[in-house]
Amino acid sequence: MRVVLATRNQHKVDELRRILATYDVELLSLDDVGVTDEVVESGATFADNALLKARAAAAASGLVAIADDSGLAIDALNGMPGVLSVYWAGRARDDAANLRLVLEQMEDVPDERRGAAFVCAAAAVTPDGREVVLEGRCEGTLIRAPRGEQGFGYDPIFVPTGEGRTTAEMAPEEKDAISHRGKAFRALAPKLAELVRPRSS
Amino acid sequence: MRVVLATRNQHKVDELRRILATYDVELLSLDDVGVTDEVVESGATFADNALLKARAAAAASGLVAIADDSGLAIDALNGMPGVLSVYWAGRARDDAANLRLVLEQMEDVPDERRGAAFVCAAAAVTPDGREVVLEGRCEGTLIRAPRGEQGFGYDPIFVPTGEGRTTAEMAPEEKDAISHRGKAFRALAPKLAELVRPRSS
Repeated sequence: MRVVLATRNQHKVDELRRILATYDVELLSLDDVGVTDEVVESGATFADNALLKARAAAAASGLVAIADDSGLAIDALNGMPGVLSVYWAGRARDDAANLRLVLEQMEDVPDERRGAAFVCAAAAVTPDGREVVLEGRCEGTLIRAPRGEQGFGYDPIFVPTGEGRTTAEMAPEEKDAISHRGKAFRALAPKLAELVRPRSS
Repeated sequence: MRVVLATRNQHKVDELRRILATYDVELLSLDDVGVTDEVVESGATFADNALLKARAAAAASGLVAIADDSGLAIDALNGMPGVLSVYWAGRARDDAANLRLVLEQMEDVPDERRGAAFVCAAAAVTPDGREVVLEGRCEGTLIRAPRGEQGFGYDPIFVPTGEGRTTAEMAPEEKDAISHRGKAFRALAPKLAELVRPRSS
């Protein structure tokens, strides 16, 4: 099945290709299908934004589109940066600046209040308007200085519950097995076949 | 009555002197009473932090101490920057950088979701451990570009409900009449006399 992945983030494309490698899905990028429009991610929730992106890509391409919206929900920041995770330090979408800012904001927050979760909403939308959206979570805590070179975003300061390493210290396949995005898209994959099957009336 | 004001923020000292001008309270600064220790504001709430500061100042000075912890609670940021308002853009406590960062984080947030409130917790603590803490709120919305030269912090982007001007476009006395800090400290003032009166047994 040919599916458009509604993201321009190459890290996400790579992750999704790995996560969906065992499924009968041919992942096309927005560039592959010639979609150039940018979607303003103005939703209040991850699910809102994932649907916004998938709907726009399905409408523009005429294909089934999948999208995710993901972020870090920090307990001591009342669930923020959340949907603003990539813009946290400003519009420049600077991973290093975002991570540095979170560490400064959390500087006085004691160890017992450093809980956080990576959250991913994965959406699939057909050109005729059928939709499904699912959420995956990875619970953990935030450390005080970055560790590890893998992954991206806030991975270097996030230690999943029951782990000693940050998600930036894990091999990509190890991270996929427990990650918010891995959980959400593995749950979404079997729904894709249902979505493209003709509706029974 | 001599009272120590547990803050090193000159803007707050000035506001409090105005707000309490009609009460029989002689406000001393931390410098006036020779307190040099800094309190780590590690509380999860405005009330926690106001009490932390007032307790430390009462213990160090042997006088009744009052303190506030205040901030901007933005709906679209789940109530943040909240207790982190002064540190929002980093540890430099840079008002202009904090304001700029909030505007960038809120850039895609539509007008109908730009609600916010200034919140102040005002605490009074006696050297023998009697405590009172009260909250004042000022509800409003956030505009998209700063206006006005009065006030400080986030005042230039905050328009109180029912007003056309930002709190930075109001005369100090006008702002005091509706502000979170004005409300909290006017409520606290009559409690001060009760606090220093000997307990009836």
